[in-house]
Amino acid sequence: MNAERFQKQLEFILEIDKMKTVLRQSLICGKTRQENDAEHSWHMAVMAVLLYEYAPSKDVNLLRVIKMILIHDLVEIYAGDTFCFDKKGNEDKELREKAAADQLFPMLPEDQASEFRALWEEFDTMQTIDSIYAAAIDRLQPFLLNYCNDGYTWSLLDDITSKEVFERLGKIKYGLPELWPVIVQMVESFIEKGILKK
Amino acid sequence: MNAERFQKQLEFILEIDKMKTVLRQSLICGKTRQENDAEHSWHMAVMAVLLYEYAPSKDVNLLRVIKMILIHDLVEIYAGDTFCFDKKGNEDKELREKAAADQLFPMLPEDQASEFRALWEEFDTMQTIDSIYAAAIDRLQPFLLNYCNDGYTWSLLDDITSKEVFERLGKIKYGLPELWPVIVQMVESFIEKGILKK
Repeated sequence: MNAERFQKQLEFILEIDKMKTVLRQSLICGKTRQENDAEHSWHMAVMAVLLYEYAPSKDVNLLRVIKMILIHDLVEIYAGDTFCFDKKGNEDKELREKAAADQLFPMLPEDQASEFRALWEEFDTMQTIDSIYAAAIDRLQPFLLNYCNDGYTWSLLDDITSKEVFERLGKIKYGLPELWPVIVQMVESFIEKGILKK
Repeated sequence: MNAERFQKQLEFILEIDKMKTVLRQSLICGKTRQENDAEHSWHMAVMAVLLYEYAPSKDVNLLRVIKMILIHDLVEIYAGDTFCFDKKGNEDKELREKAAADQLFPMLPEDQASEFRALWEEFDTMQTIDSIYAAAIDRLQPFLLNYCNDGYTWSLLDDITSKEVFERLGKIKYGLPELWPVIVQMVESFIEKGILKK
């Protein structure tokens, strides 16, 4: 056992505990409070297991997907959560998150730092089947919370239209293609109820 | 796509959101509040990835371990968290958790209900290398929070001794054998500081 190596892993494990304090815009089902990044990542990981049969290809590697999901939001420990509909916040999101990655991942032993960094970049770039599936889950999870909470997230925004919502959820079309028609129906039910503008 | 099948999966996904409200005895690092089961499961899953090199055998299947970890506490949605040092609560823990499993898993389509039930039972029985590794992580994670919080969890208990702590942590010896001497040192440092009785 290499004591220095374990020390680095230990410090990283304690550092990422901060994910439990990074709050998101989504409320947990029942609207009692905001969800945090650790909870979001756990929920996504279980969903990736449960919905694997709808992945866009049998070649999707579930272990890689879950690793990606578990760490995809770690940079928010330093960069904070950026609400997907916040235009201003999204302008410098990439820069802030890159700086956060430069700070966080090198805490790990070099081989693990490289692996985590590469997985995070792959998730962020969404050019591989694994990351396309992971990204779809990342869109679906907050949508389901919002569904459970009668469209609460949308009520935070003036004048959000179904067009913007469909644009945001569009990744589901590629990462969970079979489920897309059901999601469209679910969004349309909110338009019918007058919760979301057409 | 089988609509009835997806409906079951969807309801299960929303039901397990309740994991975010099952509070544990551990406080998150910094002692600001109690940790919940979703956060605990996420933290454990990342640890299983990071500490895999210390698993007791190269045959440990990391994907199975992570699945086990992600769902190992789901029964607590109905059965509640039982503090490991609570003797009375532990008397009927098994019965309560079995009843919870009978209620929760059948919400899923049959094949997934069987898979989750079997993984949960395997975790609980700790007779396979995958579950031995997962159980060690389940002991290590709250220990590290407690380490970060200067032994707070032990302060909840009158007269807890290092013998009881070593007994509780003993699973680490089998599931993360290389790390055991380091854990022993960490516990001993609490005895030296007078936080834990010998």
